Amino acid sequence: MSNESAIGVFDSGLGGLSAVRELARLLPHENIIYFGDTGRVPYGSKSRETIRKYTAQDASFLLSHGVKAILAACGTVSSNALECIEALTDIPVFGVVEDAAREAYAASKTKRIGIIGTQATVNSGIFKRKIESIDVRATVLQCACPLFVPLVEYGFTAEGDEITRLACERYLAPFRGEVDTLVLGCTHFPILEKAISAALPGVTLINPASEAARAVAKTLFENGLLSARKGRGEIRYFVSDEPARFNAEGKIFLGKDFAIDAKKIEIDKF
Amino acid sequence: MSNESAIGVFDSGLGGLSAVRELARLLPHENIIYFGDTGRVPYGSKSRETIRKYTAQDASFLLSHGVKAILAACGTVSSNALECIEALTDIPVFGVVEDAAREAYAASKTKRIGIIGTQATVNSGIFKRKIESIDVRATVLQCACPLFVPLVEYGFTAEGDEITRLACERYLAPFRGEVDTLVLGCTHFPILEKAISAALPGVTLINPASEAARAVAKTLFENGLLSARKGRGEIRYFVSDEPARFNAEGKIFLGKDFAIDAKKIEIDKF
Repeated sequence: MSNESAIGVFDSGLGGLSAVRELARLLPHENIIYFGDTGRVPYGSKSRETIRKYTAQDASFLLSHGVKAILAACGTVSSNALECIEALTDIPVFGVVEDAAREAYAASKTKRIGIIGTQATVNSGIFKRKIESIDVRATVLQCACPLFVPLVEYGFTAEGDEITRLACERYLAPFRGEVDTLVLGCTHFPILEKAISAALPGVTLINPASEAARAVAKTLFENGLLSARKGRGEIRYFVSDEPARFNAEGKIFLGKDFAIDAKKIEIDKF
Repeated sequence: MSNESAIGVFDSGLGGLSAVRELARLLPHENIIYFGDTGRVPYGSKSRETIRKYTAQDASFLLSHGVKAILAACGTVSSNALECIEALTDIPVFGVVEDAAREAYAASKTKRIGIIGTQATVNSGIFKRKIESIDVRATVLQCACPLFVPLVEYGFTAEGDEITRLACERYLAPFRGEVDTLVLGCTHFPILEKAISAALPGVTLINPASEAARAVAKTLFENGLLSARKGRGEIRYFVSDEPARFNAEGKIFLGKDFAIDAKKIEIDKF
């Protein structure tokens, strides 16, 4: 492990690529290794125990590449299993909860904040605890929005899509008039940002992947761990299912400027 | 393996329980062992290679219990990996394609038949090939309806649910006026039967889990493999994630008369 080592990023599938995009923008000279557990996706509807087992395997894979930091770019992992990674290594470990909770608190004027995520993220209650640990008088409302993940993955993302609009209305109704800030606590949800905003006009949306990427950049800089590389860093992608669908759909999260050529690995060997 | 051995049934998750219900109705004296791969669900959006690997493990687990027949109560497995089970054993192996295809052909007057399923099932083209092997002049139209699985699993199943109604309208529009019979090629889809019927009035719906259960009963009877048990058979449930959610949501598929107390196993050891 050295300054020239890669930053490791993983997610249950595609969503964490939004953090890769943000990292590559902030730290263009860094190498990045991404793992998407596409053979076992999704995590958000699975039990805490299974999420913890999968997380330890995902982190072990990244550690086998000698990464210098790990970002769990997945709300479900960050909420249920971050300490399973910290138990494996001394390098800096980041999730998508801590910084998003702080940013949500800072952004909120009324200190009434909403959290949306997968069932596992909401069950964990971690966003609520983090915000209340900043200010015990803050009010945090939570709601699981499990259908948002398949709506993104199965292409219900066109602007004004009526099914997505209705799903947003139904899930987000409890927040209307109740919060001024909403944390998009799952890396898929920023893809539905416009539809979520339309259902909750005037509410500030917090994107945890962006906040986490900023925290990674700050920590590497402060600890003198940035690469001295001059040219653009290399991004390598690994997945646990066949790569075809990941290569094609990754563009939803990464944007058109990234070429993805993922390699398949056997994650249950880690 | 004897006449008193159990019938093995498996699925990627909950859906195959609809076949268990039908088997228990047709063959009340038989023991049944069910495995739901809830730790890796869903299969339908994963690659053929991964589906085949998981299928072989699922079947190996059932074979370790000495079952006398195996029913792959999953459209995705039946379409992509049935021969992976047949390669492991000489006992009778059933999927949910063969008999549903035959029944759909028999039920159709116009010989214009629709198929809906997961992306993997539709990609395999197996329903189309089976029906065309009965009658090369039959017309088979296919459409993947991936959102139907999460709509069932996340509870969008109330009669008249507007989101489910719109999803049915959008996915099923290509069939309107084109087919007189539709195969519900995924074990989740019969839960949405009323909404599907409302989008395609007058079209005959074929439920492959029921057809497959009938085929199992017929084969065991014809081969003298039925149990001589007098009382009700025992049904045992195994899963690869924590059982809590499976125990609770299994009732969607099994009905209220069944008590479910599933046991967790490590499927990647098989």
